[in-house]
Amino acid sequence: MERNGRQARDQSKTGYCIRGRIWVEGVEGTFLGYGRVVLLQRIRQYGSITEAAKSMQMSYRHAWELVASMNRQSGVPLVESSTGGKAGGGTRLTEAGEKATEAFWALHKRFEEFLMQEDKRTAF
Amino acid sequence: MERNGRQARDQSKTGYCIRGRIWVEGVEGTFLGYGRVVLLQRIRQYGSITEAAKSMQMSYRHAWELVASMNRQSGVPLVESSTGGKAGGGTRLTEAGEKATEAFWALHKRFEEFLMQEDKRTAF
Repeated sequence: MERNGRQARDQSKTGYCIRGRIWVEGVEGTFLGYGRVVLLQRIRQYGSITEAAKSMQMSYRHAWELVASMNRQSGVPLVESSTGGKAGGGTRLTEAGEKATEAFWALHKRFEEFLMQEDKRTAF
Repeated sequence: MERNGRQARDQSKTGYCIRGRIWVEGVEGTFLGYGRVVLLQRIRQYGSITEAAKSMQMSYRHAWELVASMNRQSGVPLVESSTGGKAGGGTRLTEAGEKATEAFWALHKRFEEFLMQEDKRTAF
């Protein structure tokens, strides 16, 4: 399931709403964040970095750099490209890519639960 | 105690480090965030929006707008200015301002605990 980082909660009932963002840092800085994870999911969907980037109104160069950054920082590549062969090559999400995507959304879900609890708990 | 939003944790031991930011939204958008809360604490310290802004390398205009935004969104003003009188006026943090500041750092502390738990729990 693809989602974005915006919480669906609303401040209109309680007066205030606690919001936030999370991301995962690796040795180079950001390893995974909302934009990167959506990019991975679009690569799985389209089988192409070019098409994935286009669907996100992102330049191919930027998408390629994000993928390279994730692949370098992960022990195992999250995205693999094959060139040539009968099908003329292609790009796919690896099993490690699938797992990273799932782990990120699971983390995001627990973060949303934390924010909801805090909304109930904290008075400003 | 004044702190900033940067977590002291480090990705060098576990490979990855989960990071994040939180803020509180009100009816106009942001009500409290790291910069706003530090500004409140500096206003308490200096008794002056001008001096507080200077200490944060922030323009007076921007600081004044942040204070006005917080005061408008809070039921009770967080910062009060008095003009004239023997002391020539002054600016102070109200009790509601103190409470908002404390509540924000308490929330931040629980958020840091959440991030630390997730660092241990989540594998990417």
